[in-house]
This record gives sequence, C-alpha cells and structure tokens, in this order.
Amino acid sequence: MRRRVLLAGGALTVGGAVAAGAAAARSGGGGGTDAAAPATVDGLGGQMVPFHGPHQAGIATPAQAHAAFVALDLAAGVDRAALRRLMLVLSGDAARLTQGRAPLADGQPELAYVPARLTVTFGFGPRLFDAAGLAGQRPETLRQLPAFPIDRLQPRWCGGDLLLQICADDPLTVAHAQRVLVKDSRPFATVRWVQRGFRRARGMQDDGVTQRNVLGQLDGTGNPAPGGAVFDGAVWTDTGPGWLHGGTTLVLRRIRAELEAWDAVDTAGKEFAVGRRLSDGAPLTGRREQDPPDFAAKNALGLPVISERSHVARAHVTGDRQRIFRRPYNYDEPPGADGTADCGLIFAAYQRDVGGQFLPIQRNLAEADLLNEWVTPIGSAVFAIPPGCEPGGWIGRTLLG
Amino acid sequence: MRRRVLLAGGALTVGGAVAAGAAAARSGGGGGTDAAAPATVDGLGGQMVPFHGPHQAGIATPAQAHAAFVALDLAAGVDRAALRRLMLVLSGDAARLTQGRAPLADGQPELAYVPARLTVTFGFGPRLFDAAGLAGQRPETLRQLPAFPIDRLQPRWCGGDLLLQICADDPLTVAHAQRVLVKDSRPFATVRWVQRGFRRARGMQDDGVTQRNVLGQLDGTGNPAPGGAVFDGAVWTDTGPGWLHGGTTLVLRRIRAELEAWDAVDTAGKEFAVGRRLSDGAPLTGRREQDPPDFAAKNALGLPVISERSHVARAHVTGDRQRIFRRPYNYDEPPGADGTADCGLIFAAYQRDVGGQFLPIQRNLAEADLLNEWVTPIGSAVFAIPPGCEPGGWIGRTLLG
Repeated sequence: MRRRVLLAGGALTVGGAVAAGAAAARSGGGGGTDAAAPATVDGLGGQMVPFHGPHQAGIATPAQAHAAFVALDLAAGVDRAALRRLMLVLSGDAARLTQGRAPLADGQPELAYVPARLTVTFGFGPRLFDAAGLAGQRPETLRQLPAFPIDRLQPRWCGGDLLLQICADDPLTVAHAQRVLVKDSRPFATVRWVQRGFRRARGMQDDGVTQRNVLGQLDGTGNPAPGGAVFDGAVWTDTGPGWLHGGTTLVLRRIRAELEAWDAVDTAGKEFAVGRRLSDGAPLTGRREQDPPDFAAKNALGLPVISERSHVARAHVTGDRQRIFRRPYNYDEPPGADGTADCGLIFAAYQRDVGGQFLPIQRNLAEADLLNEWVTPIGSAVFAIPPGCEPGGWIGRTLLG
Repeated sequence: MRRRVLLAGGALTVGGAVAAGAAAARSGGGGGTDAAAPATVDGLGGQMVPFHGPHQAGIATPAQAHAAFVALDLAAGVDRAALRRLMLVLSGDAARLTQGRAPLADGQPELAYVPARLTVTFGFGPRLFDAAGLAGQRPETLRQLPAFPIDRLQPRWCGGDLLLQICADDPLTVAHAQRVLVKDSRPFATVRWVQRGFRRARGMQDDGVTQRNVLGQLDGTGNPAPGGAVFDGAVWTDTGPGWLHGGTTLVLRRIRAELEAWDAVDTAGKEFAVGRRLSDGAPLTGRREQDPPDFAAKNALGLPVISERSHVARAHVTGDRQRIFRRPYNYDEPPGADGTADCGLIFAAYQRDVGGQFLPIQRNLAEADLLNEWVTPIGSAVFAIPPGCEPGGWIGRTLLG
C-alpha cells in the first residue's frame, strides 16, 4: 500500500529526474545498466583483474584483502541444462562485475563501479556431477575428505554443490558481488554456508610480504610463486578428466584457532611447535624467512633444532608436483558471552589433485603436528575449479556444454 | 597432557631461541612486551591516531574502513572501584595498541605492530551509572530510546553497559584489538553483542569522498565537518553533568536494509524517497552533492520537487546546535538459505544531547520518512562517551575517579 503511494509519487517527479540528465542516464534507471562503467575511481579501487583467460582468476591472483566463500546447494531437479543456464548467467555477472560494470539485474549498479581487483571463482562440489548426470566425469579423489582424528567438523561448515569464491580489496565490493550472484542463483540453488575472510588491508604493508594470521604467525612462507613452473605444475590439473585440464581443485578447511590455549604458551613454545620464529618466520635453523629449514641440524644436546613433530617438518614435501598452493584468509566471529574467541583460518589449498597432494600432507599433519593442540578443523569442503573461459564463453562449459 | 609434553620440548630449544637474537627480544618472549614497537610498517598500516587529548579519538577521526562495536554487560557486584580498575586497564591497552605497541598481556604482540589508524573509543551505557552508585551523574536523556512505530528491535542488538568502539583501516588490527580488550574485560563483564561494520577500504577512493552504503546511496552528505565550529557546537557536550563536558553521546542503531524490496524500485522512485539523486547525491533541486536542498522548489505540476516526506526533508534541521554527526558503517551478515540479504547500516550518531538532537530528528523520520518502507531499525543503544584523557590518565576518570 505505502509502496504504491510512493511509486505514484515517483512518477510525478519526472521533471526532477529528467533534470538529473546524463547522471541519471548513466546510473541506468530501473535495476541496472548495460552501459560501460563511469570513469573508474581513482586509487586502488579502480584496479581490475581480467575475468577471461585459460585459468580462472582468484587463484594465481595475489590474494585480495577480503573474501567471501559461498557454498550453494542445488535445488531438486536442477539438471545439466539448468546448470548450463545458471553458469551462463553467473559467468556473465562475474565478467561484468570484475570489470567495474553492473550486470543487467543489478539493484545497486552504483556499487559496481569500484572493482578493487574483484575476482569471482567458481567451483563444483562432488554432488553437482550427479545432478548433471556426469558422475563419470568427477575426478576420482574429489569427494568429502576422510575423517581425521583431529577433526571436529560441524555440518554447517561442510560440503556444498557449487562454490562462489569472491575476493576483492574492498569489503563493500565483495558484499555487492555476493548479493548479485546469490540473487541470480536463487532459481537454482539455496545458500548452504558463507564464510567471510580477511587478510591485511591493501596498502597497509608492502605488497607481497608474507602476512600474519590470527595466531600471530607468518602464514604462507614457502608457497610456490604464482606464474612459475613449480606453481603451474602443482596447481593446474593436467591429468584425469579432460574437462578439468587448466583447472584445479580446492580444499577449503575452516580451522578454529584455540586462542585461549595458544595465548598461554610462551614464544619459545610457540616457535617449537611451528618450527619457525614468530618474529620473522625464519626456520629455527635459519636466519631469513625464505631460508630452507635444515631438518638435520642438532642443538647442543644432540636433539633436532626443528622437531620432527613441528608443523614445518610435518607439512614438508620434497617433490614439486606434490606441493599445494595456500591462499588462506582469517575469520573472526563474535566471541562468546564469556569472551572466548571464535577465530581462525579459512584455509584454502589449491592443487592438481586432492588425493595426490593435499591428502598425504594432511595425513602427516593429523598424525603428529604439534600445532594440532591449538588448531581444530571444524569445516571441510572440496571443489573442482574448472578452467577459465574466453570472452563469449562461460565457466563450466568444458563439463556442462 | 599433550601441552605438557610440548612445553617440556620447548624448554629444550633454548639454543634455537637464543640464536634468534634481537628478533626474539623484540617480539618480547612470553605473552607481550613493554618495548617500543619495531620500526613501524611502511604504508598506510603505520599511520597512527593519538590516543590522548581533550576528546576521545574515533569521533572527529575520519572514519576508518573497519569497525567493531562491542557492548559489554557488567558482572554482578562490579562497583565504582572495580570500574575504575577496568577503565585503567582498558585505557592502558588502548593507549598502547593505537600507537602500534603491544600491551603487557598481549598473546599475539606481533599483531600490534600495524596500527592502521586504530582508535578505541569507550562509552558508558545507562546501567553503568547505577552499578557505580552514580545515578545522579547520568545525563537526563541517556536512556533506552522510546519505542518508535517503525522499530522491530531485537534484544540481541540492544543495550549494553560499556561500549568498546574499535576502528581501524585494517581488519586484522580491529580483530586483534578487540581480542585484547575483551580478554582484559573478562573479570568484570560479559559480551552482550558485537557488531562488525565496514566502509570502503582505505585507498580505494580518494580520502574524503562521501561513500555509498549497501543501498547504493551516498551516505553522510551534509555532515558537520570535524574540527569546525558547527561540529564542535553540535557534538561536544558543554551542558549537563560536568564530568561529560568535552565528551559526547552516541546513539547506535542497527538498521536493516530491506534490500529485496529496494531492488524492485526504479531509480526515480528511490530518488523520490531519498530526495537526492543516486548518481551523485545532489538534492533533486540541485546540481552538486553539497548544494543545499530547496524545499520550496516546485515542478511543472506545482508539486514540491523534494517531497516533504522524503528522507532529506524529514531529516533536515535548521539550528546548528540541533544537528547530529553521523559516522555510519555497513554490515553484511550471511544471507538466509533462500538468498535473502541480511545487510544494513550500523548507524552511529554523535551529539551533545540525545534528547535535544537525535530524538526530534528520529521522531520526524519515524512519522513520515518515505525511506521507512525500506529500512527497519532492529537494534538500539545509547552511550555517554566520556572526554579524553592526558598521558597517565584514563578514560572515565572524570566520572569514576
């Protein structure tokens, strides 16, 4: 009733609206615009990451400050044809939003004009292949991970049929892109979970320095460098079903930090558990962050300087093809009434093959990592990340097209 | 058990820890350091806002990108003496953290070294005065706001005895400061609610441009400029109980955006409701954002160009002393399973006197603002913000000392 009154009133303001002239035309009228974005904003907000290419963006892209990982569950009856329509729509949305342009059905097109290095990365969960009638195309080890004794998984942070990974240096850009993509997914899917994560804001520190996580550790040391041969060989899938070549697989773990207990440990204890110094991330046997750990080094008592149960020792792999690429975010939910922290890591690991890379490392960690005392996996999901697409194409076409 | 094993192990790594040398000394050993921060980080992360001064920081401070509003409830038996101890501890924490230094009991001191314009602002809720035995010192209109017909208040977003307003340009800095302050509050209080908010990230747009909120509107146009005479006269309390002179009062409203309905309105309808153009924030009678609205202007049909029921008309006040200062943040919680957005504004309004400034405006808005169709207050709290303190002092001393 009140809305009808307003809309009638709105119609009477034509004079005022017309006076707005070019600006009103630019903002596009009812619900979106097909025009190019206005002159992009000055500063970091105007920076854009290409959407099209052989690989999806958001993996080799230097990690943006903010991320939303959104898991959708497909509605009953969504089949291959429906998935095709869904991915066509979402790919179109992402192609525009990442370039600072509002999709057609955008209710707040003005919010699209600060791309801030926005990337949208799509992932397919195990059940999507069944819905599409393509179970035979599912990579062999793309399935819910086996249970590890350290896990305390909560169903609300696990699984999902379709992943939207939305990353940008600006939190409003992430919120707006999420809104558009979730809205356009509605006829096909429901929201299973959303995990919001953050890193240091852009410009706070020099680009490229390894960042600290909520435990205070430098997190990401020793990652393969995106664009390099080691990264390419470890991350981009080149075996198994052909539709996934040029893509990758993602293991997303929600890992709670047991901050109350961690706070009570002194620096030496923390460094012993990690195998690296807290101050600068150097291995306990080295002087600089990037020095390789020397697992053979002994202290004056003849004991290993880096414990064989330390995190760095347990996570160590020798073969470049066995490495994983980590792109972690922090999460921090409101504390409990008693002040107990609810924070941790959204641990995102990308690799060619979950079974050949993530799983062996995780088994090693679960078995004896000293750090297990202070971190608890509470969420777990796996997704196949299809390769990228060219202009006019859409993500997932190699599987669903 | 496992922890004890580790700590024993940690003791054996003295050799390794000593090798770390200056770096380890700098990071301060077990649980915090009294030393100055290491060389502040390059870039925006190293910027600091003074903690000490006649007014608390975080109000006239240009709004940082991230905020946590934390409301604490005092534990039973916390009296004036206990409040004095609490505010002494928290003031000390804030004085250090805002200057890039870790408090003594900081479990992750390394996270303190990126101050990123951190401010911590303390506020006293109505019940704190009763707990302190100082009901006579409570400002007359500092009480839960009267119910407005548009309100749909949820108790979980209302009230609170002590407010911690934590703002910085970096989300990890906010998370860390919140952790330290909540931890040190534990002997005295429980967490009632936490509201996390964001604006455009620092550096995304030019500093000082009016930002858009989740509704796509430019939000903050016409705010009194901090540091100017109008701001000073409207914000800093100079009447009523003397302990609050140089302080202010805060009304914090959580205002849900009814985004599903707002999306369905066309641009002309949105602009009619607001009284300003979406594209550039100019009043419908003007050309530029800062042009004063002309409420007398008529369109060709003889009707007001700016409706008397528009938001800009209802929120308009004529006397400078009756104005309020808005410092709003966006919030965006995970959508419902059906994709319904859960976002809106953390509307923070500062004024000398709630009763003389916020309330008349809010009554005007509640009565007839067209925008009420698309925004719903779901949380409400009021706090007296004590004046600042000098080095060696603490916040709240003028009341509790």
